[in-house]
Amino acid sequence: MVQRHQVVIVGGGFGGLHAAQSLAGAPVDVTLVDRRNFHLFQPLLYQVATGALSPANIASPLRAVLKRQKNARVLLGEAIGFDPRNRTVVLKDGQVSYDTLIVATGAGHHYFGHDDWAKNAPGLKTVEDATEIRSRILLAFEAAERAGDSGEIGSWLRFVIIGAGPTGVELAGALAEIARDTLRSDFRSIDPADAEILLVEGADRVLPAYPRDLSAKASASLGRLGVTVRTETIVTDITSSSVTVRSGDRTEAISTRTVLWAAGVEASPLGRALAEPTGAGLDRIGRIVVAPDVSLPGYPEIFVIGDLACFDHQDGGPLPGVAPVAKQQGRYVARLVARRLRGRKSPPFRYRNYGNMATIGRAAAVADLGWLRFSGFPAWLAWLTVHLVNIIEFENRLLALVQWAWNYFTRNRAARLITSDSKR
Amino acid sequence: MVQRHQVVIVGGGFGGLHAAQSLAGAPVDVTLVDRRNFHLFQPLLYQVATGALSPANIASPLRAVLKRQKNARVLLGEAIGFDPRNRTVVLKDGQVSYDTLIVATGAGHHYFGHDDWAKNAPGLKTVEDATEIRSRILLAFEAAERAGDSGEIGSWLRFVIIGAGPTGVELAGALAEIARDTLRSDFRSIDPADAEILLVEGADRVLPAYPRDLSAKASASLGRLGVTVRTETIVTDITSSSVTVRSGDRTEAISTRTVLWAAGVEASPLGRALAEPTGAGLDRIGRIVVAPDVSLPGYPEIFVIGDLACFDHQDGGPLPGVAPVAKQQGRYVARLVARRLRGRKSPPFRYRNYGNMATIGRAAAVADLGWLRFSGFPAWLAWLTVHLVNIIEFENRLLALVQWAWNYFTRNRAARLITSDSKR
Repeated sequence: MVQRHQVVIVGGGFGGLHAAQSLAGAPVDVTLVDRRNFHLFQPLLYQVATGALSPANIASPLRAVLKRQKNARVLLGEAIGFDPRNRTVVLKDGQVSYDTLIVATGAGHHYFGHDDWAKNAPGLKTVEDATEIRSRILLAFEAAERAGDSGEIGSWLRFVIIGAGPTGVELAGALAEIARDTLRSDFRSIDPADAEILLVEGADRVLPAYPRDLSAKASASLGRLGVTVRTETIVTDITSSSVTVRSGDRTEAISTRTVLWAAGVEASPLGRALAEPTGAGLDRIGRIVVAPDVSLPGYPEIFVIGDLACFDHQDGGPLPGVAPVAKQQGRYVARLVARRLRGRKSPPFRYRNYGNMATIGRAAAVADLGWLRFSGFPAWLAWLTVHLVNIIEFENRLLALVQWAWNYFTRNRAARLITSDSKR
Repeated sequence: MVQRHQVVIVGGGFGGLHAAQSLAGAPVDVTLVDRRNFHLFQPLLYQVATGALSPANIASPLRAVLKRQKNARVLLGEAIGFDPRNRTVVLKDGQVSYDTLIVATGAGHHYFGHDDWAKNAPGLKTVEDATEIRSRILLAFEAAERAGDSGEIGSWLRFVIIGAGPTGVELAGALAEIARDTLRSDFRSIDPADAEILLVEGADRVLPAYPRDLSAKASASLGRLGVTVRTETIVTDITSSSVTVRSGDRTEAISTRTVLWAAGVEASPLGRALAEPTGAGLDRIGRIVVAPDVSLPGYPEIFVIGDLACFDHQDGGPLPGVAPVAKQQGRYVARLVARRLRGRKSPPFRYRNYGNMATIGRAAAVADLGWLRFSGFPAWLAWLTVHLVNIIEFENRLLALVQWAWNYFTRNRAARLITSDSKR
């Protein structure tokens, strides 16, 4: 019996999972390797970090998603390297051979060379990151309630978010709502509404990747929620009790106990592991520079998609690290592989941008569909719909909807647990 | 201004929380001290451990529960000792003074002097325990899928639960359903239905605290789910790859990678910390022997309630460590304190047993209401209703209901995440 064409996909994020699903009808065996047993809907991770949803609401077990796809299997394992000569992925405890390899291991945080900042300013990429941030936010209010002098209280009630991209903006908006609405009557010594939320951004406006008028709208929404936005401001140091920022030639130390990192992103270290034996090029943030068909130059059987890929064959510079790019690349590669097996060629990959959206707290958002820009309540409804439709399992849609409805009407957030051993 | 009577409650479980809430109308200030920021609905913890519910669904932030009770405040802090002479509770980082003290810190696991068993056989008392057990169960199936020889696969697919009280029975039933229904089509190399689930009990029947006929019904239900019950069997050793059991004079080593502990319970160490300065008596499992009004003998201003108390003033031996006892004692003490402030006496505490229930997997349960015993689907409906009504926050009721309905009709369990650093 001839073995079928083996497609190995490393990473079960948006890119990898869509590639696997799009190969359902192809005459191939698909092996999806991931070190976690679930696909994570990262765009909603900030809602876990702010107590609105539970981790399981935005995570779908990979096996459950692929259980009916007979040509796919899931391998829980950690890829640590590649042997392109022998067409093998090296795992921590074993290896897998491939005929076609799709690498989609995404990106992590990047502290601009200051890795020591990580412990004082956690980023938001994993479920554990989200529950850690949730604990820190809640513990800050608890510490303020028990603190003695007003300086100490102020420091616990000051939250600094670094980076005003979509994640930073969404975190800031949710934090403002926690302070002003959710925790309103919860404390006896402090007023949570006294919390100061600072959003620090190096560019000259929030959501720098969006059109200027939407940035202005987002900024106004944040202002209404009580968030202080500081643009053209660079972070120069982060300690356990302060953040030092520089704006022009003015340097200032801000006393705070809670710093959240939503700034730098860096490609997964597997990018480097793949570049070494293949001689592939890496961009500034460690992404692999791919060919127009998202393959590795010189290795037509290896594809790199999603946040790990630097795709620079379309106007406007490399494609951004967002879910729609990863999904479209995943589907594209699946189709290319199926066509190739039939001896057919494929046109280069082309990203179709259907728009960008960011939500800013309760009932406010901005949306840029290219041909149409809008904001406020309609944008928020659009955001809600798009995200609900895209959460993978139906049960999770229902659970998210119930919790959002509850949250909307009562301003409560039920998933407010301080779990795990806190580091401080 | 005269300070109001200060009631300090240590522990926000069923006893402590009900005491606090029942003091809402009394002319006192209530301080509820807990080291966690949430009340945990422990009877449903096994559902988190088996991926049916998320931790937040069975946890209610204490501040949210008490936000409208103006005479109550919540203190996030860890009590480590008591100074009854100065009427002070010693916290890890501070102290609180009381006029009346209610201690309700519950119970933890007890490994019969074999504390080294804990790492190989986790018990189920905290949210972290539940997510750890969930990870172990799911990782066992993952390891079996990747294992080479059949002995290894068998060892990963064998689950041993020690103790056939309600928790052990419920865990065994849920585990059987995971293996036979939830994971049915998830794997490619193994058949999860091959999993062996062993329920080991020292007594001569499951649910030894229930009437004999209900034990028999529960045993039959477990048998139908494929659970092997071994009664009159004692555990003599637990390692990372086996459990040694003795039945009569026959000793056997069972090869298994997953052992769950649902056997021994021991009162919280704060019992000892309270007994030392007060000379209170402790029973065999470290509970404080209380007076008929659940106060400490010689200390009419100190009360001990719930799993920490040994109340032996009713027929049938000390009251069991179940939620209804704790709740009724909490309400009783609240009433007693209010009456005492008006110079009135109270009758001794009397537990009213409205019945016991245990569920055994999907659509099966046993219920003993004293005047009525029933089992099967009606008992399961009763169990469902009682537990839904008792989950504290309305949103959590709705979320639990949605997930149970989903689970019932699809046999899916959505909260199947392997999180935290696994220990193996």
